[in-house]
Amino acid sequence: MKGLVILSGGLDSTTVLYKAMNECDEVEAISFNYGQKHKKELEFATFNCRVLKIKHTIVDISNIRDFLKSSLTSNVEIPKGHYEEESMKSTVVPNRNMIFTSIAAGYALSNKFDFLYLGVHSGDHAIYPDCRPEFIKSIENTINIGNYEKIKIITPYINSSKTEIVTDGLKMNVPYAMTWTCYEGKVKACGKCGSCVERLEAFEKNGIKDPLKYEDEINV
Amino acid sequence: MKGLVILSGGLDSTTVLYKAMNECDEVEAISFNYGQKHKKELEFATFNCRVLKIKHTIVDISNIRDFLKSSLTSNVEIPKGHYEEESMKSTVVPNRNMIFTSIAAGYALSNKFDFLYLGVHSGDHAIYPDCRPEFIKSIENTINIGNYEKIKIITPYINSSKTEIVTDGLKMNVPYAMTWTCYEGKVKACGKCGSCVERLEAFEKNGIKDPLKYEDEINV
Repeated sequence: MKGLVILSGGLDSTTVLYKAMNECDEVEAISFNYGQKHKKELEFATFNCRVLKIKHTIVDISNIRDFLKSSLTSNVEIPKGHYEEESMKSTVVPNRNMIFTSIAAGYALSNKFDFLYLGVHSGDHAIYPDCRPEFIKSIENTINIGNYEKIKIITPYINSSKTEIVTDGLKMNVPYAMTWTCYEGKVKACGKCGSCVERLEAFEKNGIKDPLKYEDEINV
Repeated sequence: MKGLVILSGGLDSTTVLYKAMNECDEVEAISFNYGQKHKKELEFATFNCRVLKIKHTIVDISNIRDFLKSSLTSNVEIPKGHYEEESMKSTVVPNRNMIFTSIAAGYALSNKFDFLYLGVHSGDHAIYPDCRPEFIKSIENTINIGNYEKIKIITPYINSSKTEIVTDGLKMNVPYAMTWTCYEGKVKACGKCGSCVERLEAFEKNGIKDPLKYEDEINV
């Protein structure tokens, strides 16, 4: 069976990539440059595809940044604090997952993939409506109504917390030092945006130190 | 009310644009460069938006051509003959309408539009599953599950033939000489591809001559 993974280069989708490698005979990954400040994540996506020796397609749709309003793609400051806080709503990119999934599905259908893997998880549900189970079910249905070929969407962690994803990924030896989660695209992760806070918590709850470098760390 | 029209530059969506102008207080149009051979249609889209003095956004996603397999975007020859024939299936671009509608919805939601207009019509249903009523209903549902803001998709001609669209458009004085339907992107329309054949029939059934120039016409 053939699986296509939507890979951001972050912790969740990279873990999904390793999972797909265990489940499919053939795996490819697809990533999107949508004008995100943290475009740096794409370098991490590329790294992991090279390590796994799989084909990686980066789709450049960066000009949609001009009209999709979000703090992730504009001059608006990225909010600090916990992932579930109301202020994090500014990081919503309208219809982002639908845009990514539609293009990835077009690729998957053109190239006879059986499965399309997405890295959504339960921690996303509070803020991002396009990460909820009812959305995934609906978009899968829409794709299959709209095309001659059919595809199945696989979301291994849709009911898991980030902590559980890390637990699973550690078993698969996912190289977490080479995954990028921070919404700021700086040299080191900020450690303060909602995305960093959630990630740090996930490692802490697993009883290990996140191997990624953070801004306020003391260099030893 | 604000309406956003997905405008290809063809006969159907241009007629929808004129209809939206009658129905909404504010109208904008969005078009896609997806690497189609008949990219020329975009010039016609631009022309009509200038005439109507409305904002027109062209989204460049032409690099998706590399992986969406279709005779519209590759070296495969465009089939001649009637629009409903089996061979026309090579002109299907996998998931095209879903990709366009997803990006357009992102734009519409970011900019507080109430309506998203699509130019699908009953003649499309036989070949293009992503033009059928059940697809439109499903994609509208998916958009509204996946976002905080809501939008309504308007398809004025979903149950109409191209002949009926032309009948309606003529009443609104749509400048059909400035709409491009041919799948070949040459200087004049070919008059032989499924899209041309259907268009020519629609004018004939309305008892008038298509004002567009065709290749095999004798220049008077």
